Amino acid sequence: MLSRTLVRRLPVSKATLVRALSSHPPNTQNSNTTGRNQNSYWLGALSALGASMAIGASMTLTEAPQFSQPDAMIPVETPTSIKDHPTVNSPPARPDLPVFTREEVSEHSDEDSLWYTFRGGVYDLTTFYQGHPGGAPRLLMAAGQDLEPYWEIYRQHLRGHVVDWMEKHRIGSLSKEEAEAASKSFEFGDAYETDPERDANLLPCTQKPFNGEPRIDLLTRDYITPNELFYVRNHLPVPDIEAKEYRLIVKGKGLKKHKFTLEDLKTKFKKHEIITTLQCAGNRREDLHNDQMREFLAPHWVVGAISTAKWGGVRIRDVLKECGLDVDAMALGELEIPGLEHIQFEAYDQDETGVHYGGSVPVMKAIDPFGDAIFAFEMNGEPLPRDHGYPCRVILPGHAGCRQCKWVHKMILSDKESNKCWQQKSYRHFAPDINFEKDLATWPPERLDQAPISQMMPVQSIICNPPQNTILGGKNADSVTVKGVAWSGGGREIQRVDVSIDGGKNWTAAELYKPIKQRWNHHWAWTQFYQTVKLPEEIQKKLKNGEKVSLDLCSKALNSDFNVQPERMEPYWNARGIGINHWYHVNTTLDPNANPGTIQRDGSTVEFGGNTPTGGKFAEKWDMHGWSADPEHRGPSGLKTKPKSFYDKMDDDRKARIQKEVEKCTPSDE
Amino acid sequence: MLSRTLVRRLPVSKATLVRALSSHPPNTQNSNTTGRNQNSYWLGALSALGASMAIGASMTLTEAPQFSQPDAMIPVETPTSIKDHPTVNSPPARPDLPVFTREEVSEHSDEDSLWYTFRGGVYDLTTFYQGHPGGAPRLLMAAGQDLEPYWEIYRQHLRGHVVDWMEKHRIGSLSKEEAEAASKSFEFGDAYETDPERDANLLPCTQKPFNGEPRIDLLTRDYITPNELFYVRNHLPVPDIEAKEYRLIVKGKGLKKHKFTLEDLKTKFKKHEIITTLQCAGNRREDLHNDQMREFLAPHWVVGAISTAKWGGVRIRDVLKECGLDVDAMALGELEIPGLEHIQFEAYDQDETGVHYGGSVPVMKAIDPFGDAIFAFEMNGEPLPRDHGYPCRVILPGHAGCRQCKWVHKMILSDKESNKCWQQKSYRHFAPDINFEKDLATWPPERLDQAPISQMMPVQSIICNPPQNTILGGKNADSVTVKGVAWSGGGREIQRVDVSIDGGKNWTAAELYKPIKQRWNHHWAWTQFYQTVKLPEEIQKKLKNGEKVSLDLCSKALNSDFNVQPERMEPYWNARGIGINHWYHVNTTLDPNANPGTIQRDGSTVEFGGNTPTGGKFAEKWDMHGWSADPEHRGPSGLKTKPKSFYDKMDDDRKARIQKEVEKCTPSDE
Repeated sequence: MLSRTLVRRLPVSKATLVRALSSHPPNTQNSNTTGRNQNSYWLGALSALGASMAIGASMTLTEAPQFSQPDAMIPVETPTSIKDHPTVNSPPARPDLPVFTREEVSEHSDEDSLWYTFRGGVYDLTTFYQGHPGGAPRLLMAAGQDLEPYWEIYRQHLRGHVVDWMEKHRIGSLSKEEAEAASKSFEFGDAYETDPERDANLLPCTQKPFNGEPRIDLLTRDYITPNELFYVRNHLPVPDIEAKEYRLIVKGKGLKKHKFTLEDLKTKFKKHEIITTLQCAGNRREDLHNDQMREFLAPHWVVGAISTAKWGGVRIRDVLKECGLDVDAMALGELEIPGLEHIQFEAYDQDETGVHYGGSVPVMKAIDPFGDAIFAFEMNGEPLPRDHGYPCRVILPGHAGCRQCKWVHKMILSDKESNKCWQQKSYRHFAPDINFEKDLATWPPERLDQAPISQMMPVQSIICNPPQNTILGGKNADSVTVKGVAWSGGGREIQRVDVSIDGGKNWTAAELYKPIKQRWNHHWAWTQFYQTVKLPEEIQKKLKNGEKVSLDLCSKALNSDFNVQPERMEPYWNARGIGINHWYHVNTTLDPNANPGTIQRDGSTVEFGGNTPTGGKFAEKWDMHGWSADPEHRGPSGLKTKPKSFYDKMDDDRKARIQKEVEKCTPSDE
Repeated sequence: MLSRTLVRRLPVSKATLVRALSSHPPNTQNSNTTGRNQNSYWLGALSALGASMAIGASMTLTEAPQFSQPDAMIPVETPTSIKDHPTVNSPPARPDLPVFTREEVSEHSDEDSLWYTFRGGVYDLTTFYQGHPGGAPRLLMAAGQDLEPYWEIYRQHLRGHVVDWMEKHRIGSLSKEEAEAASKSFEFGDAYETDPERDANLLPCTQKPFNGEPRIDLLTRDYITPNELFYVRNHLPVPDIEAKEYRLIVKGKGLKKHKFTLEDLKTKFKKHEIITTLQCAGNRREDLHNDQMREFLAPHWVVGAISTAKWGGVRIRDVLKECGLDVDAMALGELEIPGLEHIQFEAYDQDETGVHYGGSVPVMKAIDPFGDAIFAFEMNGEPLPRDHGYPCRVILPGHAGCRQCKWVHKMILSDKESNKCWQQKSYRHFAPDINFEKDLATWPPERLDQAPISQMMPVQSIICNPPQNTILGGKNADSVTVKGVAWSGGGREIQRVDVSIDGGKNWTAAELYKPIKQRWNHHWAWTQFYQTVKLPEEIQKKLKNGEKVSLDLCSKALNSDFNVQPERMEPYWNARGIGINHWYHVNTTLDPNANPGTIQRDGSTVEFGGNTPTGGKFAEKWDMHGWSADPEHRGPSGLKTKPKSFYDKMDDDRKARIQKEVEKCTPSDE
């Protein structure tokens, strides 16, 4: 997997380092003369995706304003050698603690006592049983054993702070010989081997499961994000589903149980298309992670877990109607079914123990005639890519990415929210005084009622161009042009975006690009923005004197509730790292010797195309974690067993105990 | 008017200065034992208002949680003498400028040249014609004359910065004799003489029109704000309407013109009740006003322009249905009437030239079966008080106060927004680099498209108890209890409120009080919050050592979109002063010699019951502007003419010109 990733990156890394700004499409500056060409460009870009032809009932394409974007691509280079990075993941020697044997450790493998070994350390994680973000069943599966074979796959544990936290639960050590034997004592198969290939411009935060964000500077090239660039947020291995074998099961309160094939969905219901932005609830999580305030959920997105596509499928409300639910009477307030409050989804993808992904939203999201909640089988006019839920997924415009259940298999109407950990644990917004180490490593924590569950998303804006840590041509420059994307969850409209070149001391409104007409309070798709900001006299003077000038670019959006983005992250820090929308800063330097319109990488600080956090602090360089965090985990693992067979080999008692936990994460069959 | 206000204040000012915290209702601390009593208290408080009996279809009353509030009333005192405050409103001597006669000035009285005099200064405000926040017709009415008789009524001009701004437009002076004669040259009648009386606890920001906010410490005494305490935001004199003479005219796109009497509304349609919070779009405007960043719109609310009531009336969608509009088909997305986008309202209240108040909202707000948009004729079970729109007003839950048209007379469906200044000018959210003096004194300004019009409101929270500038008993204290209100516009739910006692360095979640069940995304009514925060060890130690300790209390709410309140106001400053929701700070001091549970006024800094801004800067003490800003404007004016007769006496030419402007502010008769 590693070698393939590297190979796919190399061709791009050979691109020239400096490119002219104005090539494609025409530049903004001469907007009066080039207006028509620019419109053609935008309309062309959209119509190539069929957007002008067959979009959903709630939107029509308007003529594009005069708007162009410099083609400010920053070439991707091969990452610096991972050998340069010392491991941060080895526990310290602890001669003060007793020495255990592997056999002693293996006796602690049920929920009453959960011991683990890792690189010679012995850990008692019994209290962590339900607190494990990856789920209790997996913790039970690994109990009494060495963690290294598991973390060979789940390398997101290897960022230093996880092992550091585990030291608090350290109870002893293995002998050196036992430690070496432990790490090779069994093989844990790679359930991700059949994952699809990804584009080189999709920068991985974690490889298993795959979580990748597009290079931020590419996001403003088109209004609709190309499929291969659309961010991927997987929680589990990508299932390989034959279209013919696909089934959607519908059941629950107020309706008859139904089973639909993909063909049923495509032929029995009217097709509905909708352009919507999706954003992961945890986008920009890395910004909340530093030595003092540590985030224990992966992935640590930098900034790019946001993209826009046109989705094609059938309305969930039409399917519910077919199953006998009077959705129209409900939408008119004439029918209320007591206890029918939530709509749960369960997906095909599953972990090694059989826990399937899932979540739920308030049922009115699907009942609302303008809610545009659909079962989607198309993305930008093509069948869904495997990474995006092939053959069928849920699209719930305005909601957080985690609710847009991919590879959807079941829909259950219920009086309860989903009991999945992704509903009940992962995406809760805790108060700033709640942290993983102190409060959440055991579960349930106190005052869980004060930690609301993620559904809709706050107002967001991100400057995409120029990207982070670049050098812009500043010879006789009198202005700088910024471009970005802004979005607000829950259908709220972006009504203004202010931009600043001095870190937020002075602001001016950007021009907004809204090529599609959207309904009031149903603005699902993002707004792009751009502005050419005049440089203050003193900066122009410095440039004329041959001095380099640093700029701190940032933006803040205003939505139709007049909600705004907060300035800094600290007061809004939350243990799960969700709903993050403080100002995103872009640092750039004007070079008085380079021609305006040129853009160069500042190679000293940035790794990939500009996706660096605005205020977060890396324990190690970003490209060094996840797929290649640890020198000892380089290269293909060469593992032979499949994870399911690993699980299958377990004794019946442990299997039964694991399945008891799995059941807790399975929707009831009402 | 002044004397009445003073008289009404006096009885309250005799209340004792120190009261025990725990009297009514039972205190929180022993919640386990007093829980039942507290529930009874809350249920009693609500049922007294009929809330448990007959509330709207979208809400039911839930059992109240264990929650009590200290009766932390701060007695109101007579304001300090206005003689102590030197006037800030007299223009400087300008011997460098020419001297004009009143006759010369009077020749400049049409839109081509608008001159005015004020206390000896002569001003050319021609470019200000359409920029006047109070409307062009009034500026035209006053043209060529002295402003003092007008400002005798509209004293909100007398806060220093208005006269200061006018100096930029000064072109000359009158002679001393002429100046004296000018100010007495005519009488401008008081259209507000028939306004109703107000409660002493409604603190006036401006008297004419009346704008008053409740004493902030009284807001958490009840979940439902008593009628007499509900904030009053008037734009014009209160009309005196006989119920029998009341008419509601409905017309416009897609329906037949109808006229309804009050009796028609009450008998032809099903009654609908709804509990909703209203907040003025400009609440906390004073916080945005200081010497550098000046606000030119009145009123300069401090913090209390927010209240909650149960409104009774009939659904606007039912009235529209009666008029022939198929609102159900529209709500189901089956009918779309091209160009039917806005619903305009026009009211009975009018200014001296005949401009009626009005505004508009997107039509779907009224079409939505769950939008709860009503014509209300009851407030908390009683007929609407005159100040709140008697006999009939509009309630549009979730929208800014300015859209809740009181004394509603006409409803017009249209393809356009209302052309009223309160829609097109007053409530726009400008970027921080746009200010009145530089950009908005002429109209229309550049880039008006980047200044969205206020409809819904952002997430807000306000600590009400303890109020500002108080001294709390701190003898051996180990905690401090805060209470407040939180609300989010557009129906978003308050999902958490964090409170801090150190100005925002550390936060903890408050307990939330939500006594009524509201629908998802239709949370119209506020959430109250309370928390007893433990004092850090070092503070407890200081108190034990007999040291006073200052606390900086603040709160921030999280809504169901995970939108948050920003930290400080500067980056979000806007010229009209709307959508203000940065952290509200409350400064309080713990006195080591006073018993816990006591509360005293810090008389040195606060004027009235704690409504002081968190960061704003008064040019003069708050109670000193508006009704009594200027020593020369004390006491009853003794004016004899009614404003309408003043207007009537004008020559036909000027009348015609004024009416041309009035027409621009009148909805078309389509």
